[in-house]
Amino acid sequence: MNATKNHSLNVSMIVIGDEILNGRTTDLNGSWISKYLFKMGLNFKSLRFIHDDSIEFKKALTDSINESDIVITSGGIGPTLDDKTKNCLADFFNKKIIERQDVAEIVTKNYIQFGRTWTPEHNQYHFFPEDFIATNNPRGLAPGLAYFENKKEKLILAGPGVPREFTEIVEIEFLPLIKHFFPERFQENFQTVIRTKGVPEEKIFFELCPTLWSDLEKFGKVSSLPHTIGIDIVISYNGTVDQHQKKQTDIKSLITKSNLATHVWQYGNEPINEMVLKFAIENKYTFAFAESCTGGLVSSKITDLSGSSEVYLGGVVSYANSAKTQLLNVKQDTLNQFGAVSIQTATEMAIGARTQFNTDFAISVSGIAGPGGGSVEKPVGTVVIGYASKTQSGARTFLFPGDRLRRKERFADMALLTLLELMQNKIIL
Amino acid sequence: MNATKNHSLNVSMIVIGDEILNGRTTDLNGSWISKYLFKMGLNFKSLRFIHDDSIEFKKALTDSINESDIVITSGGIGPTLDDKTKNCLADFFNKKIIERQDVAEIVTKNYIQFGRTWTPEHNQYHFFPEDFIATNNPRGLAPGLAYFENKKEKLILAGPGVPREFTEIVEIEFLPLIKHFFPERFQENFQTVIRTKGVPEEKIFFELCPTLWSDLEKFGKVSSLPHTIGIDIVISYNGTVDQHQKKQTDIKSLITKSNLATHVWQYGNEPINEMVLKFAIENKYTFAFAESCTGGLVSSKITDLSGSSEVYLGGVVSYANSAKTQLLNVKQDTLNQFGAVSIQTATEMAIGARTQFNTDFAISVSGIAGPGGGSVEKPVGTVVIGYASKTQSGARTFLFPGDRLRRKERFADMALLTLLELMQNKIIL
Repeated sequence: MNATKNHSLNVSMIVIGDEILNGRTTDLNGSWISKYLFKMGLNFKSLRFIHDDSIEFKKALTDSINESDIVITSGGIGPTLDDKTKNCLADFFNKKIIERQDVAEIVTKNYIQFGRTWTPEHNQYHFFPEDFIATNNPRGLAPGLAYFENKKEKLILAGPGVPREFTEIVEIEFLPLIKHFFPERFQENFQTVIRTKGVPEEKIFFELCPTLWSDLEKFGKVSSLPHTIGIDIVISYNGTVDQHQKKQTDIKSLITKSNLATHVWQYGNEPINEMVLKFAIENKYTFAFAESCTGGLVSSKITDLSGSSEVYLGGVVSYANSAKTQLLNVKQDTLNQFGAVSIQTATEMAIGARTQFNTDFAISVSGIAGPGGGSVEKPVGTVVIGYASKTQSGARTFLFPGDRLRRKERFADMALLTLLELMQNKIIL
Repeated sequence: MNATKNHSLNVSMIVIGDEILNGRTTDLNGSWISKYLFKMGLNFKSLRFIHDDSIEFKKALTDSINESDIVITSGGIGPTLDDKTKNCLADFFNKKIIERQDVAEIVTKNYIQFGRTWTPEHNQYHFFPEDFIATNNPRGLAPGLAYFENKKEKLILAGPGVPREFTEIVEIEFLPLIKHFFPERFQENFQTVIRTKGVPEEKIFFELCPTLWSDLEKFGKVSSLPHTIGIDIVISYNGTVDQHQKKQTDIKSLITKSNLATHVWQYGNEPINEMVLKFAIENKYTFAFAESCTGGLVSSKITDLSGSSEVYLGGVVSYANSAKTQLLNVKQDTLNQFGAVSIQTATEMAIGARTQFNTDFAISVSGIAGPGGGSVEKPVGTVVIGYASKTQSGARTFLFPGDRLRRKERFADMALLTLLELMQNKIIL
């Protein structure tokens, strides 16, 4: 192996199809693959959009092969006249298209997964370029195409255009081929994620832990990214699964000893709604929500998950003050004296929700999502999150940046984190 | 003008920045621009990702200029050392970077919009390539760059990497430059959208209106796309605003006379939550929701919009049956006899919500989002949407395809459409 072989693999993608260029379906595959390739430690080099046209195809393929080790195409592998990928690829590599029994078997298998029977009268799927590899299509009928050009060490992979078919064929069929043809150069990319809350980026790296960034750089590339709840610190590196696990442990132990420890709410990438649901189901805890400014988003995030009906009994969206008094038994006096966005009101909302739905726990959200409604004492972005269990109740105030929609997201995720902490008996005022 | 000038303009994009290649922020600008270019009648030719590296930049720029009339770059126009776009572009076109008073004025304006004052000590923004155009940055500080290469008629546009800055600079600053430098070749793309409900694609084009597709093709390119509520028929064409308005009118009159007329709920592209809110505010109508399977999503969609608190008073997410009886006064008998997903229960939920929140109107949703919970009579995807006003109440049953999340979306949008029809006194059973 020569020196250049140690560089990570470059991938170019070609998106084929007139219908893709109509703008409504554009680049679902392209934007998906850019994330996927990164995760897999592969370099995304370029993305080209072309019509169902053999001249455009040849040009795009030439350019892509020049700049990359691997070229992935999506689209044009179906049975109709405008599906030209198979013929173009055969032409390009000077291969004849022949009737192939091995491909007929793969097509048969693809049909069986939909409970259908394939016969050669259906289409020409079993006419396939010689020396090409045919792959299964885990969610479709047409086989994928793969060809490894030995001399230049280039791998061409052609998949379907339909996004749900494309993503699965890449993950299940194409990735193993990439590993197979580039055994020395393929190195998976891993990330260790540290999720913090309640502390701005500058404070983490300049005040709390001035050496943290350089300490973490010993493990890999460090980046710091705003998440809905707080700052995510991401360390990414190539390697084996074992190396990844060792690094994870070492990074966690480094953080645990640092001043950042109390601000970390997760080592990992699990969505907060899934963490909440899992913990509640494991412990057979029921809960309810009383939402004002999030307007149902907290409930919606939990009910996005199948199984939520086991533990989530319901919620009240008390957008108007009258709804707070009538459905959640918030006292009119409390509203008059402290306002809707206050520790007192949020606490009463949480207690009211817990009582109404007769649950173990309840969380309330009252805040100012904006753009209007702010004041000097309670600026736009202020949110009070209340909580109630059988033994305790209270509320905490936060301030989040963003526009209306991003604030709703942030308020909602912070409400879910508060519920998790409440169930874990970890609420600290 | 020679013949090729009449072709629509090709655009290539280059996304610059190490941080873009880390996979977390990848291609927000790329996927946005692919949609935007289509809308503007421009051809999206290619998208390249490169590091902050001048050799990669030069190569990508050469290739992009070869295949396109317009090259747009994002990233690398900030003040730090790794921001190399300005220098690379100046180099590429053999231009000197000079101190420019006109650019200093633009930078000053960019700072003023954030209430800040710029002085030359801040950065080198006013050192700018000669003969380049500096543009405002409507949501950022660094000026955008534009250069028109006269001989080859190529336009280069360089914007910031931050998506909210990039999208605005393209819309507000770059598009007028494209129109300016290609006055004869720029032709905006327009769409007329016909949104239908309650009728499958095949039925529209094979049963109801067998000649509709070819009739519409006289106006432009026709496509038929599933929307949350039903099928959208989209006719797209290039032209002037006047031509567009004429076509819109003609298409509408064609549809109005066809068998499809009763299935059309909108000629246009307005989101259903905005239509509901606008109509309610105009008529000073208040409303409330009672949600089961949508789990707060209907409420959340309405409260995504600023101003919703004027007319939306609140909602109950009655996920558990106990919540339906206790908070919405659904009779236990009704639940026992007909089940939660039934005309009877949904009607009582809507009446209960209207009473509880004391509104003009209320909508309820009870259905099976899946993946579990279906039966032969009520398969997964069944949803009953109830409604109540001062004078009428009832419920309608629908069946929607998709997975859990898509069904939630479809149920929620159908609930909003039901509310709109209810307020417009257009409910037809």
